[in-house]
Amino acid sequence: MYLRSDYPKELSIELDTCKQPAYIPPFPLFRSIIGESRPLPSSPRLQSMGSQADSSLQSIRYHRGSLQLLDQRKLPLDTVYLEIRDAVEGWEAIREMVVRGAPAIAIAAALSLAVEISKLEGFSGTPADAASFLKNKLEYLVSSRPTAVNLSDAAIKLTEIVMNSAATATDVNQVFQAYIEAAEVMLEDDVASNKAIGSYGSSFIQNQRKDLKKLSVLTHCNTGSLATAGYGTALGVIRALHADGVLESAYCTETRPFNQGSRLTAFELVHEKIPATLIADSAAAALIKTGRVHAVIVGADRVAANGDTANKIGTYSLALSAKHHGVLFYVAAPLTSVDLSLSSGDEIVIEERPAKELLNTHGGLGEQVAASGISVWNPAFDVTPANLISGIITEKGVITKTGNDLFDIKGFVHKTMSSN
Amino acid sequence: MYLRSDYPKELSIELDTCKQPAYIPPFPLFRSIIGESRPLPSSPRLQSMGSQADSSLQSIRYHRGSLQLLDQRKLPLDTVYLEIRDAVEGWEAIREMVVRGAPAIAIAAALSLAVEISKLEGFSGTPADAASFLKNKLEYLVSSRPTAVNLSDAAIKLTEIVMNSAATATDVNQVFQAYIEAAEVMLEDDVASNKAIGSYGSSFIQNQRKDLKKLSVLTHCNTGSLATAGYGTALGVIRALHADGVLESAYCTETRPFNQGSRLTAFELVHEKIPATLIADSAAAALIKTGRVHAVIVGADRVAANGDTANKIGTYSLALSAKHHGVLFYVAAPLTSVDLSLSSGDEIVIEERPAKELLNTHGGLGEQVAASGISVWNPAFDVTPANLISGIITEKGVITKTGNDLFDIKGFVHKTMSSN
Repeated sequence: MYLRSDYPKELSIELDTCKQPAYIPPFPLFRSIIGESRPLPSSPRLQSMGSQADSSLQSIRYHRGSLQLLDQRKLPLDTVYLEIRDAVEGWEAIREMVVRGAPAIAIAAALSLAVEISKLEGFSGTPADAASFLKNKLEYLVSSRPTAVNLSDAAIKLTEIVMNSAATATDVNQVFQAYIEAAEVMLEDDVASNKAIGSYGSSFIQNQRKDLKKLSVLTHCNTGSLATAGYGTALGVIRALHADGVLESAYCTETRPFNQGSRLTAFELVHEKIPATLIADSAAAALIKTGRVHAVIVGADRVAANGDTANKIGTYSLALSAKHHGVLFYVAAPLTSVDLSLSSGDEIVIEERPAKELLNTHGGLGEQVAASGISVWNPAFDVTPANLISGIITEKGVITKTGNDLFDIKGFVHKTMSSN
Repeated sequence: MYLRSDYPKELSIELDTCKQPAYIPPFPLFRSIIGESRPLPSSPRLQSMGSQADSSLQSIRYHRGSLQLLDQRKLPLDTVYLEIRDAVEGWEAIREMVVRGAPAIAIAAALSLAVEISKLEGFSGTPADAASFLKNKLEYLVSSRPTAVNLSDAAIKLTEIVMNSAATATDVNQVFQAYIEAAEVMLEDDVASNKAIGSYGSSFIQNQRKDLKKLSVLTHCNTGSLATAGYGTALGVIRALHADGVLESAYCTETRPFNQGSRLTAFELVHEKIPATLIADSAAAALIKTGRVHAVIVGADRVAANGDTANKIGTYSLALSAKHHGVLFYVAAPLTSVDLSLSSGDEIVIEERPAKELLNTHGGLGEQVAASGISVWNPAFDVTPANLISGIITEKGVITKTGNDLFDIKGFVHKTMSSN
């Protein structure tokens, strides 16, 4: 079972993540790695997964033995990549917010250790010692963001892989190799999954709006290359619509209080030369009312079994505006975001973030703007009920509603798994 | 006819105003001044209209011969009043944003000239010369904010008063006295009008929600003492609910991109010791969904004859959320905000503001936050259709709907005028 039924129900996501779920690689791939029977491709794509693969902005540049992270603290004003040579530097980069976005930090952590061990010489010990060594390093990496569920989940999965490898390995290098390959698969899978979301989403939306030659889309927060290993989820759909030549314009919200929209999504859109316009969160309803938006596409932090979706604060407001104006509203997220153990969004407890994010500039890091002494309610997420959602775009296709305005997500998941 | 049928339909309001209409003193009062037959009270209230009158924060402190303006550029971090001694200093204070808010700047301008002439000695000339002198000074004051309709309207009215005075005056001092008294009436009337709005609004809402002992209210932008001569409109209703002992809590939005909510409304609420909580604009729908908000109360920049209301961007989104959750949604504004020449909100052209407000901190005045090269759509206002509005709270009472979900604003205005 690859859905996260064992998750704590309270969302605890790192500081400025908004739409990406904790990263859990699709189970079938992992199973094959666990058994060490799956040959890893040594194609150029895997050997140098990065800007060579496509022109889109990347938070993670990796080829075996080398990892560079885009310093997101300097965005959008400067584009600087930092070389990460080992787990210590990986830990620091995560702690210091060089990299952000739930899948991105999990993958960055895993790859920092992969780079370290790819250069490791003369490890003395048994395969079990090697597995222990990696387990300790992973635990250390998790301590860079102790509340980041995705990071600890990835560490658990990777630890499982090296433990399994150690059980049958005759040489420490086999264990290290298993680790490196598993970390690389995480990177590869995230990008592949996002590209599939983009492709399914673009085709589906074009099909829904056959009446239009070009269409415009509104998105929220950052769900792009900067939050994922690459390409993005909701922003991946926008990328695909643009690549298909049918995107008239993308609109992105500022996304208060951390400005992921104005800083990161806007940056990606400009970088990709996608026609795009930034609006205040509060201007979305007025924009939709003008008729200039044909679909709203957002990411998801968690999707309940009935389709209720937790996502960055403000998503619910966009969904209400879209519904009122008869505009399509889509959630774009990998199936790992679906938690079938949650029967509805009512079971999702929303994290409340520090007041300072609203009181000071730069999401709390800059100078004071607001009045001293005012109380603040600063929820990180809200829940959009399924009845406001037109469809859920996944890497396996788009989940649409059955006749009675309900999603059969469980059925979709089972059908998908049985076809693997 | 005291409604602004001769207005240009495009809203052009100064930089950070959001809810206050251009100031037009009620016609009957002005008429009596024109005829110089109305004795002005020389009560302490008029002689020292300011912090003595009540404990609420004031942008304008005035008594005859003395004017102090709260330097709003320094809010919310510092509370500093600047002494304004003449029209030149008034012009500078308005130009430099010491004072903001449509009624507040009109009154500040008028009073700066009142202070100047109260100290004027040895003016040589006829009453007509005195009127000309004042007319020129008023024209000069209007040039401090050439696009501020309220300021130019006030100048027109005051010029009319001094011209009429000059026509019958035997002494220049009569003309100057007529001017001073008219400027003081502007200040007095604005506060009185707001207090009436507060009182009507509080009673009406309490009556609507008799089931509740205490109730909580959400507001947007700044409509308080800082935007008006005192007390405020929507914030005046909140003030009155608090004074009546029925306010559980006020919620105020940040109000992007100029942060009038987090800077000014929050400041006023803290100052008044009104229990209050700040939220991001995008969190309003999620807040309303929790059931913690019993009414939304906003101001208005312009109300069309059918009740459609132009107000600070984001108002429409709040109205949609309120409607979806069955929460009362009120507009609080003086009748001077009603423009019967506009049959609906469709006739209101919305001003678009500079991109920089969204790209940089401090509403465009601070450092860059957003990505370079991104396009921006930054409308200052949006229009909330009458069907989303539960009632319009004015200084003459609350305009409610007739049986068919329509407002009869024209009827209300005529009834009100005939009863004067």
